[in-house]
Amino acid sequence: MEYDVIIIGAGPAGLTAGIYLARAGKKVICLEQGRVGGQISIAGHVDNYPGFPEGTTGADLIALFEAQAKRFGLAVQMGRVDGVKVEGAFKEVSVSGFPLKAKVVIVATGLVQKLGIPGEEELLGKGVSYCATCDGALFRGRPVAVIGTADWVVEEAIFVANYASKLYIVAKGPKFEPTTESRKELLAFEGVEAVTGATPLEVTGDNRGVTGLRLDVGGEERSLDVDGVFVLSGKKRPGTEFLKGVVELTEEGYIKVGENCESSLPGIYGIGDVCRSEFHQVATAVGEGAIAGMDAIRYLKGN
Amino acid sequence: MEYDVIIIGAGPAGLTAGIYLARAGKKVICLEQGRVGGQISIAGHVDNYPGFPEGTTGADLIALFEAQAKRFGLAVQMGRVDGVKVEGAFKEVSVSGFPLKAKVVIVATGLVQKLGIPGEEELLGKGVSYCATCDGALFRGRPVAVIGTADWVVEEAIFVANYASKLYIVAKGPKFEPTTESRKELLAFEGVEAVTGATPLEVTGDNRGVTGLRLDVGGEERSLDVDGVFVLSGKKRPGTEFLKGVVELTEEGYIKVGENCESSLPGIYGIGDVCRSEFHQVATAVGEGAIAGMDAIRYLKGN
Repeated sequence: MEYDVIIIGAGPAGLTAGIYLARAGKKVICLEQGRVGGQISIAGHVDNYPGFPEGTTGADLIALFEAQAKRFGLAVQMGRVDGVKVEGAFKEVSVSGFPLKAKVVIVATGLVQKLGIPGEEELLGKGVSYCATCDGALFRGRPVAVIGTADWVVEEAIFVANYASKLYIVAKGPKFEPTTESRKELLAFEGVEAVTGATPLEVTGDNRGVTGLRLDVGGEERSLDVDGVFVLSGKKRPGTEFLKGVVELTEEGYIKVGENCESSLPGIYGIGDVCRSEFHQVATAVGEGAIAGMDAIRYLKGN
Repeated sequence: MEYDVIIIGAGPAGLTAGIYLARAGKKVICLEQGRVGGQISIAGHVDNYPGFPEGTTGADLIALFEAQAKRFGLAVQMGRVDGVKVEGAFKEVSVSGFPLKAKVVIVATGLVQKLGIPGEEELLGKGVSYCATCDGALFRGRPVAVIGTADWVVEEAIFVANYASKLYIVAKGPKFEPTTESRKELLAFEGVEAVTGATPLEVTGDNRGVTGLRLDVGGEERSLDVDGVFVLSGKKRPGTEFLKGVVELTEEGYIKVGENCESSLPGIYGIGDVCRSEFHQVATAVGEGAIAGMDAIRYLKGN
């Protein structure tokens, strides 16, 4: 398949670029490996995106963005990008091994919470996931671990608990008690076990995928036999593994962009949190989505 | 009066900066010399500002921005800025001769349509105006000229016609006929006269203000005796006269900004169309408003 533009990531930045490009009649697709909306979709209240005097929720806001993009004909499709390469005037984007071609690629993959432990990056997509509601159903009847205890993490864990045969909720703190309705609901599932006071050390696996999660629990090592590890805790880092060696990245993995959000490689753009080490706002994402969208239209004219 | 931040211009960029700063509890005022909302407030339909799937009008959108800013306590006040100077840690902003002080100044004055003819800049605020609905009432019982014939210009001219003793509508084209409801309404006013095929040459005046408008009408010179000239036609240029010699401007008058929208002078920011020679979008303005707002909060912490 050949497109004018492939947008990777359907958060506020990617959807805005999509609004501009689809409205201009470009052949454009927006790929999302996880949750449409990205980080903002799990934000409770959004108070500072201009246009909503009383505030709104992240989920409501992103539903409006998506509806607007779709009204102009933007295709939003699920797919995990595992590589980008340049082939003459085209860029080839590998989506779960399937190649898509486009003249322009706009990267809007935002940030993911990563632990930065051995095995995490190597087994990404082979049992390691950053989105439980996206990949949870893949683990029907199999044991998994969910790392994190924030309210939204518990919500995601409930989703996974509907499928998994065994679910370990891995908590840093000393306790994980049914103090909220969500926690009660999660702990009521058969096979849910909280492992508290735990620090993840390594995701283990073989060439077929994840086989376990090694933890430090109060100074002693413990290994969980799991097929899946949902990393929903840790430092937020840009999701740019698939771009290594393609465009210039900062040491921390952010895409280096110049004026008009262009990366070091003409026709590849970076927008939103994936190229911003600070000021992670819907407003800034939207601004950059508009700029990249308009600059891409000009780029397409010239190429 | 001393403020943390003075924002000059209440368009999408300025109001967004205001939302961020007022929400953060800063003492902030937003000054507007013309129409709250700026250019966008006269846009009929806004289709590409994310969050409004069916589109909205410029006026409706800006009303939402303003309501949101005011909810957080932003003061939006009318005032024309005629100078900015630096006094130690403070910037002094002269508003119609009255000094206001602030640690940070954010310039969001957008673009104005300018003819670039002699007398225009010199007599700005002394009879020359870029906003008829703002200044029209100042010309009660006096003769004025309105330059331009776009639909929105005709709407503005109607507003002025309610006050002026005589109103010349100055048209470049060979005809100005009652082809629309608005034109019919305008031409029905007593004392309204269309001057067609006309090219403005000079705004004449003395030290008290505008005395006339000199035109080339089909190769012959004609002078209109008017006290006011509303320039609603011409090339759009950044409104930065009051910043000359204070911060670095491009040859065309755009504010030169670096990362985080800071100008060449720390603590003075430029956001929105006033520092963008292209991509004049609500979305980009909003992005820059958020960045400058957040960076200003950090600047205030450090100073």
